[in-house]
Amino acid sequence: MRILITGSAGFVGSHLVERFLNEGHTVIGVDNYISGQVSNTDLFRDHPRFTFIEADVSHGIPYTGEKLDWVMHFASPASPPHYQQFPVETLMVGAQGTQNGLELAHAHGAGFFLASTSEVYGDPHVHPQPETYWGNVNPIGVRSCYDEAKRYAEAITMAYHRSRGVNTRIIRIFNTYGPRMRPDDGRVITNFVHQALRGEPLTVYGDGSQTRSFQYIDDLVEGISRLMMVKYHEPVNLGNPDEFTMIELASKTMNLVESKIDLVNLDLPADDPKQRRPDIGLAWKIIKWRPLKGIDSGLNRVFDEQKIKS
Amino acid sequence: MRILITGSAGFVGSHLVERFLNEGHTVIGVDNYISGQVSNTDLFRDHPRFTFIEADVSHGIPYTGEKLDWVMHFASPASPPHYQQFPVETLMVGAQGTQNGLELAHAHGAGFFLASTSEVYGDPHVHPQPETYWGNVNPIGVRSCYDEAKRYAEAITMAYHRSRGVNTRIIRIFNTYGPRMRPDDGRVITNFVHQALRGEPLTVYGDGSQTRSFQYIDDLVEGISRLMMVKYHEPVNLGNPDEFTMIELASKTMNLVESKIDLVNLDLPADDPKQRRPDIGLAWKIIKWRPLKGIDSGLNRVFDEQKIKS
Ligand SMILES: NC(=O)c1ccc[n+]([C@@H]2O[C@H](COP(=O)([O-])OP(=O)(O)OC[C@H]3O[C@@H](n4cnc5c(N)ncnc54)[C@H](O)[C@@H]3O)[C@@H](O)[C@H]2O)c1
Ligand SMILES: NC(=O)c1ccc[n+]([C@@H]2O[C@H](COP(=O)([O-])OP(=O)(O)OC[C@H]3O[C@@H](n4cnc5c(N)ncnc54)[C@H](O)[C@@H]3O)[C@@H](O)[C@H]2O)c1
Repeated sequence: MRILITGSAGFVGSHLVERFLNEGHTVIGVDNYISGQVSNTDLFRDHPRFTFIEADVSHGIPYTGEKLDWVMHFASPASPPHYQQFPVETLMVGAQGTQNGLELAHAHGAGFFLASTSEVYGDPHVHPQPETYWGNVNPIGVRSCYDEAKRYAEAITMAYHRSRGVNTRIIRIFNTYGPRMRPDDGRVITNFVHQALRGEPLTVYGDGSQTRSFQYIDDLVEGISRLMMVKYHEPVNLGNPDEFTMIELASKTMNLVESKIDLVNLDLPADDPKQRRPDIGLAWKIIKWRPLKGIDSGLNRVFDEQKIKS
Repeated sequence: MRILITGSAGFVGSHLVERFLNEGHTVIGVDNYISGQVSNTDLFRDHPRFTFIEADVSHGIPYTGEKLDWVMHFASPASPPHYQQFPVETLMVGAQGTQNGLELAHAHGAGFFLASTSEVYGDPHVHPQPETYWGNVNPIGVRSCYDEAKRYAEAITMAYHRSRGVNTRIIRIFNTYGPRMRPDDGRVITNFVHQALRGEPLTVYGDGSQTRSFQYIDDLVEGISRLMMVKYHEPVNLGNPDEFTMIELASKTMNLVESKIDLVNLDLPADDPKQRRPDIGLAWKIIKWRPLKGIDSGLNRVFDEQKIKS
């Protein structure tokens, strides 16, 4: 197949490129590096079946090549420090960026695959969150540039599916981690691993009792690949339902290093969700998917990758 | 002042044009007639302080005149039959349309005024709805092309306010009625009045026990005008909190005609909100506004206008 991936220089995008190239597909990556890394493009630059286009997909996707089978829209600043630095760009890549991807897919008769997020559930009143839960999002808060952009992206994807017949997929990704995360992405696992490697105290927001679930990147990529095979057009959660408090995660991280490390507590950021955990019954039902990698071995892999780099 | 109004050929837009012209301002109307009426432009065509630009504001606002004081963004298909016929256009005027208005306001150092809607509250779990309520909206339902577009419009308006310093206003308009509504807009008051005038049975969806509140257009226009004077940037509800069931409204309509009329019951449309009523405490606090016109005299005015037309 010929697959175009927006956000190919990002964390998730680069793992998708790798997977599809390994499976023998032709891949076109598109990125403007607003939150991505050139090193993620360099990984594949010499691959005969990889092409890269540097472009801001909110202003159009300048692809003029042969017929595409899939347009996978993974471009978007994804971590709070990134999207709060670029609120308008984040809103645009959710609206214009998604629409440009849908138009390209429509023109090629290709499938369109949207990376949405568990943030569409906001600060949920239902726990765990099934896909039928409508969410609790602050439309005007400082996170709304991301959350509302993704809700809009889902709405326009459904509109192109319903009114223009585009063969669409929507996934709601829950916190994902693994090699190639940016050290400055502000996500908790990245923070902890880098702080631990530097022997610095681990930063815990609030009292650390808020819980998160973490899925390893390989599990996510497997779920994406399976969902491409079935014609299911409504959103599907992909995440790991195993929950940990931030305190538990901190102590698991501490176990990876020999020396003793402290914790520091900082204030909770505005609108920070208290807890979030996927209901993955739907993914199990339609694609027989569930995450296979546990947190301890996943943390270990990230830790090892970072030790080699540093 | 020099005021540009998108959606000037619509129901609310045309009343704004009238008000501002009457107050001595210069008005530029912009509309593409997707749900508006040429007759609403014709009302002002010969006015020396009125200019009209026919354009789709989702593709840009081609204004090249003198410095604007306000950009008022009221363009959007607004009733379910209109926006469900044009889901992609509705999504675009909420995203690209709003952003084009914000950019124009930014370039002119003008204020930007967004017409949002009570639909951002969706099918509310809180009753009545204060502005602090985050809503209960289905992001992928058939109404999401409107609801999510408006939530996005609010989010990008706040982003331009916060990150680019634009002097913004956001109102959440609750059901409004009055002269110049389109006979085919599918809203309940229009339906009832036209059905009553034709001596047809009044159409009630579901069992008619769902409630709605209705504000007369003059009250809305007064609220808008007052809000322009105060620097308040978060959303403000403008609506009439007096609630009626559809059955009550039907009987009020029947009272306006001499002959006996029947009711017919049809199925509730998908995602139809069960009830919605504004908490208008904030508008009272910041602009000393509350609606002054009751339903009986308002219904009468609409009825009289329609009788003259037909
Ligand atoms: N990683 C997670 O835990 C997670 C969770 C939920 C959703 N997601 C979603 O998955 C996708 C990928 O996330 P990620 O973690 O890899 O983030 P990332 O920041 O590592 O990757 C996103 C990539 O998109 C690129 N990009 C952003 N705007 C662009 C534009 N206008 N034009 C071209 N390229 C643009 C960035 O430069 C970056 O390379 C995003 O859509 C994100 O919202 C990720
Ligand atoms: N009337 C209500 O009860 C109500 C309630 C809540 C919110 N609102 C909001 O108030 C605004 C006005 O609503 P209305 O009742 O007057 O609806 P309307 O349909 O009568 O007017 C909207 C106008 O916008 C124009 N328009 C739509 N898309 C456009 C585009 N891309 N470019 C240029 N013009 C475009 C239409 O042609 C129409 O003239 C809308 O934003 C609506 O969402 C209205």
